[in-house]
Amino acid sequence: MRSDGRNDDQLRDIKITRGYQDWPAGSVLVEFGRTRVLCAASVTEGVPRWRKGSGLGWVTAEYAMLPSATNTRSDRESVKGRVGGRTHEISRLIGRSLRACIGLAALGENTIHLDCDVIQADGGTRTAAITGAYVALADAVTWLAAGGRLADPQPLSCAVSAVSVGVVGGRIRLDLPYEEDSRAEVDMNVVATDAGTLIEVQGTGEGATFARSTLDKMVDLALQGCAEINRVQAEALALPYPGTLPEPKPAKSTQPKAGK
Amino acid sequence: MRSDGRNDDQLRDIKITRGYQDWPAGSVLVEFGRTRVLCAASVTEGVPRWRKGSGLGWVTAEYAMLPSATNTRSDRESVKGRVGGRTHEISRLIGRSLRACIGLAALGENTIHLDCDVIQADGGTRTAAITGAYVALADAVTWLAAGGRLADPQPLSCAVSAVSVGVVGGRIRLDLPYEEDSRAEVDMNVVATDAGTLIEVQGTGEGATFARSTLDKMVDLALQGCAEINRVQAEALALPYPGTLPEPKPAKSTQPKAGK
Amino acid sequence: MRSDGRNDDQLRDIKITRGYQDWPAGSVLVEFGRTRVLCAASVTEGVPRWRKGSGLGWVTAEYAMLPSATNTRSDRESVKGRVGGRTHEISRLIGRSLRACIGLAALGENTIHLDCDVIQADGGTRTAAITGAYVALADAVTWLAAGGRLADPQPLSCAVSAVSVGVVGGRIRLDLPYEEDSRAEVDMNVVATDAGTLIEVQGTGEGATFARSTLDKMVDLALQGCAEINRVQAEALALPYPGTLPEPKPAKSTQPKAGK
Amino acid sequence: MRSDGRNDDQLRDIKITRGYQDWPAGSVLVEFGRTRVLCAASVTEGVPRWRKGSGLGWVTAEYAMLPSATNTRSDRESVKGRVGGRTHEISRLIGRSLRACIGLAALGENTIHLDCDVIQADGGTRTAAITGAYVALADAVTWLAAGGRLADPQPLSCAVSAVSVGVVGGRIRLDLPYEEDSRAEVDMNVVATDAGTLIEVQGTGEGATFARSTLDKMVDLALQGCAEINRVQAEALALPYPGTLPEPKPAKSTQPKAGK
Amino acid sequence: MRSDGRNDDQLRDIKITRGYQDWPAGSVLVEFGRTRVLCAASVTEGVPRWRKGSGLGWVTAEYAMLPSATNTRSDRESVKGRVGGRTHEISRLIGRSLRACIGLAALGENTIHLDCDVIQADGGTRTAAITGAYVALADAVTWLAAGGRLADPQPLSCAVSAVSVGVVGGRIRLDLPYEEDSRAEVDMNVVATDAGTLIEVQGTGEGATFARSTLDKMVDLALQGCAEINRVQAEALALPYPGTLPEPKPAKSTQPKAGK
Amino acid sequence: MRSDGRNDDQLRDIKITRGYQDWPAGSVLVEFGRTRVLCAASVTEGVPRWRKGSGLGWVTAEYAMLPSATNTRSDRESVKGRVGGRTHEISRLIGRSLRACIGLAALGENTIHLDCDVIQADGGTRTAAITGAYVALADAVTWLAAGGRLADPQPLSCAVSAVSVGVVGGRIRLDLPYEEDSRAEVDMNVVATDAGTLIEVQGTGEGATFARSTLDKMVDLALQGCAEINRVQAEALALPYPGTLPEPKPAKSTQPKAGK
Repeated sequence: MRSDGRNDDQLRDIKITRGYQDWPAGSVLVEFGRTRVLCAASVTEGVPRWRKGSGLGWVTAEYAMLPSATNTRSDRESVKGRVGGRTHEISRLIGRSLRACIGLAALGENTIHLDCDVIQADGGTRTAAITGAYVALADAVTWLAAGGRLADPQPLSCAVSAVSVGVVGGRIRLDLPYEEDSRAEVDMNVVATDAGTLIEVQGTGEGATFARSTLDKMVDLALQGCAEINRVQAEALALPYPGTLPEPKPAKSTQPKAGK
Repeated sequence: MRSDGRNDDQLRDIKITRGYQDWPAGSVLVEFGRTRVLCAASVTEGVPRWRKGSGLGWVTAEYAMLPSATNTRSDRESVKGRVGGRTHEISRLIGRSLRACIGLAALGENTIHLDCDVIQADGGTRTAAITGAYVALADAVTWLAAGGRLADPQPLSCAVSAVSVGVVGGRIRLDLPYEEDSRAEVDMNVVATDAGTLIEVQGTGEGATFARSTLDKMVDLALQGCAEINRVQAEALALPYPGTLPEPKPAKSTQPKAGK
Repeated sequence: MRSDGRNDDQLRDIKITRGYQDWPAGSVLVEFGRTRVLCAASVTEGVPRWRKGSGLGWVTAEYAMLPSATNTRSDRESVKGRVGGRTHEISRLIGRSLRACIGLAALGENTIHLDCDVIQADGGTRTAAITGAYVALADAVTWLAAGGRLADPQPLSCAVSAVSVGVVGGRIRLDLPYEEDSRAEVDMNVVATDAGTLIEVQGTGEGATFARSTLDKMVDLALQGCAEINRVQAEALALPYPGTLPEPKPAKSTQPKAGK
Repeated sequence: MRSDGRNDDQLRDIKITRGYQDWPAGSVLVEFGRTRVLCAASVTEGVPRWRKGSGLGWVTAEYAMLPSATNTRSDRESVKGRVGGRTHEISRLIGRSLRACIGLAALGENTIHLDCDVIQADGGTRTAAITGAYVALADAVTWLAAGGRLADPQPLSCAVSAVSVGVVGGRIRLDLPYEEDSRAEVDMNVVATDAGTLIEVQGTGEGATFARSTLDKMVDLALQGCAEINRVQAEALALPYPGTLPEPKPAKSTQPKAGK
Repeated sequence: MRSDGRNDDQLRDIKITRGYQDWPAGSVLVEFGRTRVLCAASVTEGVPRWRKGSGLGWVTAEYAMLPSATNTRSDRESVKGRVGGRTHEISRLIGRSLRACIGLAALGENTIHLDCDVIQADGGTRTAAITGAYVALADAVTWLAAGGRLADPQPLSCAVSAVSVGVVGGRIRLDLPYEEDSRAEVDMNVVATDAGTLIEVQGTGEGATFARSTLDKMVDLALQGCAEINRVQAEALALPYPGTLPEPKPAKSTQPKAGK
Repeated sequence: MRSDGRNDDQLRDIKITRGYQDWPAGSVLVEFGRTRVLCAASVTEGVPRWRKGSGLGWVTAEYAMLPSATNTRSDRESVKGRVGGRTHEISRLIGRSLRACIGLAALGENTIHLDCDVIQADGGTRTAAITGAYVALADAVTWLAAGGRLADPQPLSCAVSAVSVGVVGGRIRLDLPYEEDSRAEVDMNVVATDAGTLIEVQGTGEGATFARSTLDKMVDLALQGCAEINRVQAEALALPYPGTLPEPKPAKSTQPKAGK
């Protein structure tokens, strides 16, 4: 029995709220238990310099933690003047994972920024972020399509979800809260598609090593968790777009109208 | 008639939600119409170096904007590697305003961090932040008092609220949304107490100058707005503390228990 | 009686020396008692990126303190690698105040940089800086006009001066030196025009709140001080331009000739 | 056939040169084909602040690339003023991997810095770095033991090696050079022990997803590669310590003697 | 004939004004023709960390240029967020030069900061800075001695001055203004003592090389110039200390009294 | 007798290895005794912004030290987030010295980056770096000439070498190792050409001053040392280019082909 009453192979309650903010093309609050991440997908014209003239779009992500999101207040990276290694690593992981599901040619030379800001942290923030960012991205694609701004009407080739799995006290467990994560012997994050294929696998022994067979069992459990999360994503996306879609033929506008 | 249907002297809908996050001692979501700011009050042991040995506590604030909070996505200050002038200015204003209502000797050498993160911006983010930060601070004081950690059981000498007022198209208006703020001839922010006294007055002609008599009318209107906001704060604080208060005699713990 | 022998409503000696440096189009040393600020107005071609193509010019300010200007040596911001909040705030205030008196269309796409470097600090450095920056700006305008580089021969719509006022030991006093400023209960800076209108009003209770009636008296006293300072500015500007003015028709040169 | 003539399951030539530099306790040049990384293990007294008083030592790593190491010159991170995301990520991976093989209690409150500087890059720099860092760490342990500075004479619990594996043109290949890495569909790095257990598994679909069965085959091949690399490490470490070991009873000295 | 009418071996007018600012223990405005540098010597308690416990004092220098000091406005290093190479280099040169003339043991564990801020630049700013910094240092020493804070009543072993010399159009010239400096074939700075010995010699061919015999002639001319500058320094220092000296026995105060 | 057995006027063993790395156009390992510096010359298209449109090329240098190069590990400047004063100073010296021997018009608007990374430090790293950078630059020129990319087939006007000289225990000595350098009374670096002319002379009294006659003897000895080093450079360059030269007529390629 886990301290929150779950079985080893059970996810926490997953909730997905679309349209959390008014301005971005996609804005999703995702909750994995007490972990809450706000994932926004903003469309901006143009691409980074190294990509100009390619005709291809770009999808990039930035992950951050509110100082008040953690049990003990954490210092603000803007005040420290530098983004830490962990933040960089997770931002890169999210961007890479979401680029795996979208045809960048369809976007033209436009960029989708995925901002994943952790409102409350209780383990699994990066997997929640990937899960929510997919839904925000899907909304941004709907918004672009409505505006007639996509070369290919359906550029998403699959859905993307992610979950953590670990070995805690010798038991393989799914979707670790902070209390388990902080004492896990092995910690793994798996990003998968709704076709059951893998996008990213990252497993680490924390002061311990692990057997090949443990790896196999962890991947099995994670894939099963991802499939369940995919169903929650699909349900959320079955509802209509949570805002006003643009008219079919705007030439230049980038975002829904509103103030600052 | 204003574009949102209000009279010139009318506030937007003000909502205050306490206990928005689980870990900080005070956590408040404040809404002025579409403007939404998350204000968290976190208690940490110790004070900044220049204050050590004084026996006095410290209250400090940090204001920030989520990239997705604005109509057009704004760049993340952590990624730019420096905090901008506007951010600095507002952070200093919030800290100064809240220090006006609390006896710092009562805290002992402890610090309360007020983190004001703008979730959605539609004008008046700094005045909403001050208004919400007061409620979060009051909750943190309740939490400290319950834990027996205050030298003086009621260190708050008054309540603090703030509102913007401006001259738009020649008319003096209260609580400007972005659409009005961006074209105001004069822009003013007033921070006041529930005793009707002033803490801070900042008025600026935006490419225009203004008469002494205009200043007087703006201050009158702002004080009337602040009094109304004080009532909303008082109502919100009339409800019980939205979490578990600590036992009377803890020696060392700083924050409510929870994970990351 | 104040410690320097002044009455409560009396300014310190104000001196304005034009032509303090040889290279900038305007260069003014302004003294408010022992406070000395060097204000230089330099003309450079072009405008910031966000303003390009508008046909409008720009006026911006940077405030800084020499390490040796303060009673106890202060660290150099270039060495710390970041500009502090107070510096940012004052730089923004100076720029905003001076932009209120100039028609930016007249400049064409050129920028005037107002560099206000504090040589010696004894309270009121920001108000001295605004006062001196106006005179330097006026000289830069004369220099631009002589060179035939202004669309409108007289782009200045008014003169700008500033002064501090505060409550010290319960008495409302004008133009506070450091010794009074550091123990003031209320501290206010007022920026006004020679027409008696206001540009900026910033009043702060320092660990205290203040009544509406106190605000009124402080603004009255400050406006009276600003009017006196306007007279000193006018006297200084009645003298001829303190350098060599350019010939009427230069196409491209930006600054008076000289070496490094 | 691969462009360098290897079979799919074949490593490049692996060379390990100990004692490459004179001052660090361990200094190893490791070569995976044309990839060359200099791995130095330096012992310094004390541990990071957050670890003080624990009685435990610390092992940390920093990875960097000479500007001239890459095909096209890359900018120096010191000049850019910030360490990039990729550098952070790899530094953290190396540190984590090596901490898995050493008992930190044995070090006392001392730190071993593992500096992995890439002299020439041709794919697989992070796996070469981990492989070389293990040998440098082993030398530093020998040096500490000779000086009588270890609480436990053999704090290394296993040997650590790492290798890359990927899917290139549909074929699973071991130890990818840059030319293959840059066009791989799936890219994986595996860190393993000489006992055949895993420390870290990181697999990424690069614009593609991959099947569970592909993951299994990649891990199999990588483990086989790691075992071979372990043999090369063991051979290198069978030779005597490549320098002068300290006398048994020094109290305070930290590094072999020499100049700057 | 040089453009300013001087002979090749002639200095510009050198003026030294002591007591330019009120707060630092030494404050000197030095002028070499149009070049003007403000040199302040501030005494602070304590020494840098690496020097603590040595019983020795420290003398360090920081050189900076006001943005308005140069013919074309230069960007502020605090705003750029980093100190440039030239600034670093000159700061180090000034500190090194002045440390050559003072017994650091006499200071006890106190630091003298020499801040050299260029008010106006017309060539030779670094040599003017060294020349002025010596006089400011001498005043700081007088101030410390009066306060009974020196272990050795006369810690200055010699006077220090500096001058530039160069080859311009094939002619060896002394004390180059910007107009000559910018087109010199060889540029040299010499720091010397009043005993005629050398502290620093830095000569550079600017896109040209120079003969051994040219070096000899340049050093001869520079030493003659330094001797003359020493006489100006001695005359300036023959006047009484330009401020109020502290009473003989203060235990702890660091600077002359005054406000901010 | 010196501690390493040399006479006062004797150089350490100087070794120059060309072709140390595969990708840069020139890559040289230079050794002055135990001091080892890797000097790479990389050709990139384009010039810095301030030089665009001039038709001239640029040669610039960056000097850095591996953390493991020094007796006690030194912190990485990329991690500290700023390049130190000493690093800046040496980088500027190397660039200036090498620009003295090359006609920048011949390069067209291309840049040669000279990266001098110290692998092991034992005194004289900057003079070794200049010596090695010359050989790397000569190789880059050969590479550019072979590709038909030079306007002038032989843009090098002379060879450049450098050596340190100092006064140690009252004796004038050549090419100081760290052990002598750290206790030298006078320290000098001389950069000279193979024609016996000077490019740069930098002499510093380290807490001591020195006589004019000492300067003369130091320069004599340094010039003799530079002549010897020139012979070692010439021998090294007498061997064929250590790699594959490009075909005569490439229009656009910049560097020898290879991976990352």
